[in-house]
Amino acid sequence: MKLFELAEATFSTIDQGDGGLNIIGAAGLDIAGPGDITFLANPKYTPQIKDTKASAIFLNDDAGLERIDIAVLRAKDAYLAYTRALRLFYPRRDIVSSVHPAAIIDPAATISPNCEIGANVVVGKDCRIADGVKLFPNVTVYDGVSIGRNSIIHSGVSIRENCEVGENCIVHNNSTIGSDGFGYAKDEDKHWLKIPQVGRVVLEVYVEIGSNTAIDCASVGETRIKRGAKIDNLVQIGHSCTVEEDALICSQTGLAGSSVIGKRVILAGQVGIAGHLRVGDDAVLTAKSATSHDVEPGKIISGIPGFDNKDWLRATAAYRKLGAMAQKLRELSSRISKLEGE
Amino acid sequence: MKLFELAEATFSTIDQGDGGLNIIGAAGLDIAGPGDITFLANPKYTPQIKDTKASAIFLNDDAGLERIDIAVLRAKDAYLAYTRALRLFYPRRDIVSSVHPAAIIDPAATISPNCEIGANVVVGKDCRIADGVKLFPNVTVYDGVSIGRNSIIHSGVSIRENCEVGENCIVHNNSTIGSDGFGYAKDEDKHWLKIPQVGRVVLEVYVEIGSNTAIDCASVGETRIKRGAKIDNLVQIGHSCTVEEDALICSQTGLAGSSVIGKRVILAGQVGIAGHLRVGDDAVLTAKSATSHDVEPGKIISGIPGFDNKDWLRATAAYRKLGAMAQKLRELSSRISKLEGE
Amino acid sequence: MKLFELAEATFSTIDQGDGGLNIIGAAGLDIAGPGDITFLANPKYTPQIKDTKASAIFLNDDAGLERIDIAVLRAKDAYLAYTRALRLFYPRRDIVSSVHPAAIIDPAATISPNCEIGANVVVGKDCRIADGVKLFPNVTVYDGVSIGRNSIIHSGVSIRENCEVGENCIVHNNSTIGSDGFGYAKDEDKHWLKIPQVGRVVLEVYVEIGSNTAIDCASVGETRIKRGAKIDNLVQIGHSCTVEEDALICSQTGLAGSSVIGKRVILAGQVGIAGHLRVGDDAVLTAKSATSHDVEPGKIISGIPGFDNKDWLRATAAYRKLGAMAQKLRELSSRISKLEGE
Repeated sequence: MKLFELAEATFSTIDQGDGGLNIIGAAGLDIAGPGDITFLANPKYTPQIKDTKASAIFLNDDAGLERIDIAVLRAKDAYLAYTRALRLFYPRRDIVSSVHPAAIIDPAATISPNCEIGANVVVGKDCRIADGVKLFPNVTVYDGVSIGRNSIIHSGVSIRENCEVGENCIVHNNSTIGSDGFGYAKDEDKHWLKIPQVGRVVLEVYVEIGSNTAIDCASVGETRIKRGAKIDNLVQIGHSCTVEEDALICSQTGLAGSSVIGKRVILAGQVGIAGHLRVGDDAVLTAKSATSHDVEPGKIISGIPGFDNKDWLRATAAYRKLGAMAQKLRELSSRISKLEGE
Repeated sequence: MKLFELAEATFSTIDQGDGGLNIIGAAGLDIAGPGDITFLANPKYTPQIKDTKASAIFLNDDAGLERIDIAVLRAKDAYLAYTRALRLFYPRRDIVSSVHPAAIIDPAATISPNCEIGANVVVGKDCRIADGVKLFPNVTVYDGVSIGRNSIIHSGVSIRENCEVGENCIVHNNSTIGSDGFGYAKDEDKHWLKIPQVGRVVLEVYVEIGSNTAIDCASVGETRIKRGAKIDNLVQIGHSCTVEEDALICSQTGLAGSSVIGKRVILAGQVGIAGHLRVGDDAVLTAKSATSHDVEPGKIISGIPGFDNKDWLRATAAYRKLGAMAQKLRELSSRISKLEGE
Repeated sequence: MKLFELAEATFSTIDQGDGGLNIIGAAGLDIAGPGDITFLANPKYTPQIKDTKASAIFLNDDAGLERIDIAVLRAKDAYLAYTRALRLFYPRRDIVSSVHPAAIIDPAATISPNCEIGANVVVGKDCRIADGVKLFPNVTVYDGVSIGRNSIIHSGVSIRENCEVGENCIVHNNSTIGSDGFGYAKDEDKHWLKIPQVGRVVLEVYVEIGSNTAIDCASVGETRIKRGAKIDNLVQIGHSCTVEEDALICSQTGLAGSSVIGKRVILAGQVGIAGHLRVGDDAVLTAKSATSHDVEPGKIISGIPGFDNKDWLRATAAYRKLGAMAQKLRELSSRISKLEGE
């Protein structure tokens, strides 16, 4: 791909270098080689620019550069432009329409002729598998599931009864969609009585689920992950939760039941969200924080339990010296007593 | 089902409405429709009563109600009565005695004729699978495993060598029962030398294990989950732990090795329990807390490391202002110095 | 095995008892029976010595003993000697060279005749499976994967495209090697645009991965787990991380992308490591701690965010009384005001 074509396709402009230059791949500053285009988004990595072997680089409009032997594409958001370049160089592979002879498809399932179903996949009755779907080997699809166009389900995934996966979704390996919610009532003998979990999970369109993640069905009703939400590995989504559009949930975060995660919310790694609450649109919970209360839209929250991130930063700085503070307090107390005694 | 029949089956009494009313299902306040029975257990949701479309409601004996157009069943514990109603409306489905032709059963395994074994299930030698067991597709049962009557194992589960699953257990998708404990000794060259893990896991009766949970076998001996204990998704149970009867372990909690979790203990989400300790009966660890010491029976513990929940609540309230406290301390110190100088 | 043979094989010396004594197994103090050898490494368990039914015991060179009816083997490190004894009594089982007829092997894969491949295993094209490898049933190996000599892959594991597993590795059940890293750029419409993840994962030699663990591939390049590193259950390793030799990562710990974990580092349970940082060789992060900054070699770090473990221990002790401290501060303030008013 010529540099000028790449500029066009990534909505960037040539600031330095020859538009006819051949670009053959894209990679990070430290990995890129001759013929590759790279990027700088975080100023922290500026020093790596002088050593990169890349032939071209995406830079934000305002970023400086001290090299003249490298082509430069300017973009409003260099990271986004680089992402678009990567997507050009590594397009999604086409499926090969086929059903492996060792797949076990219930006769009462409806399978589009234009999908790819791997070995040892099991598809239950009354399932509907749409055009362009790829089921990797060893996927299990329970009865009554529908999977929308162009979705990809990786090996080891289980999708439980009546769940719905929309178009253009990806579910990575060994994740579980629709297992029973964790619900019990304590009976008169203090034993736990299981509450039936007969609801389902709906993944809307452009949802991506990482590997080894568990999304429980509702007891009655739905757990719903909305358009474009992205969920990382080893995440727990409890029964009856709603994850709104474009929310981003990082690895090992857990949601108890019936909570609502707003649009474009970011839950960083290992966050905990208690049940029956609402995290407002565009809020952020930083890594390892937790909340048992609603979070206002747009707030940045940290700590256990979470509070305003700026206050938390001050508190954590003071905390490191808390042992000394306690000692200082005792000292001040005795100095006051002495003054009082005078 | 008639209202009076439902009352009888749920140990509740008709307080309002016609005993002959037909009830066709059960659901939460916001989801229930005409013909359904719903419930109110948490006073927080009282306002939803005026909007519910349910035809009947379970109420605790002491709960008020301002509607007269809805049938009322009074119970000592409305949540428990509702659970019993749900169980009537959504009974466990019967198994269909069968072994799928694509299941691979070792000839030296003993399989009851009254169990249901799905496609691509693999059962090793010397296994015993009892009456009423359902193995969903793609389950793997290693050699020497026994699975007791009426237990259900979901797709993607692995049960390792010689483990024992008692009667009426449920194991959800992609969980691992009996993988090696994490044990190594450091050798003279500072490399880790693997300690053989040749013990097993025993799940007693009425145990439920969520999805994507890992329960390690003991190095020598047993890891044991006792009658009626319930374990959620993505939980780690280390080697040689014992989980006592009716304990409840929520999602993403982890137990290091050789600890004992007492009867009816509740470990909330993302709790951490260090090794070789005992959490006493009926203790509670709140979400995201941790302990590296024994916990006395009946205590409620919070924080990292955990301490008394009431003290912790006070501490967390103060913590939010810790930055200001540190500043205040400096200010008091200089005021005292000034007084001392006078 | 005679006691004198065991002493020789474990580099220990007979301090008490008859070298001709028959030892038939090894187990912990509480489980060991007649004929077994046990060990004491942690002085905490010294009281159990008087009750153990073991016939022999490994003791550290300096440990006391009040029993004369038990054989004693002295070792520099009793735990290591016991580990070696266990390994003698429970050697790794040999594989049975075979490919199960229900395994699905791509014709373009290269499978050594001396490996054991279980039922329903799926191996993609261009894979290379070396001598001595054991793939348990229901393993899925994507295209282009290589697995080195004597490695063991347990049921439910997925190994994604082009990943490499070195010699003498073990991967436990339902783990995922090489799923997509969690990378997105925000586009002009505030939707997440997926960044292609086309790199791979390399496990070097003697690496062990627990069950239900997720190791993501790099976007471009490699995620690498080096020689002898051990990773527990339910661990998250983000894209492009490097885990150096002999590092030990305990259960439910998570690494965000592009971080480097140094040699012999220990990350205890539920630790969080932010992205793009370096944990120096021999550092330790205690359970539930986290860092968003580099950690110096050899440091012991605790807390969220983590700081020096000794300071943290003081801080946590003070924290329990933080509510009282806040009150004390108010009291001192008013006493000072009173003094100032005099």
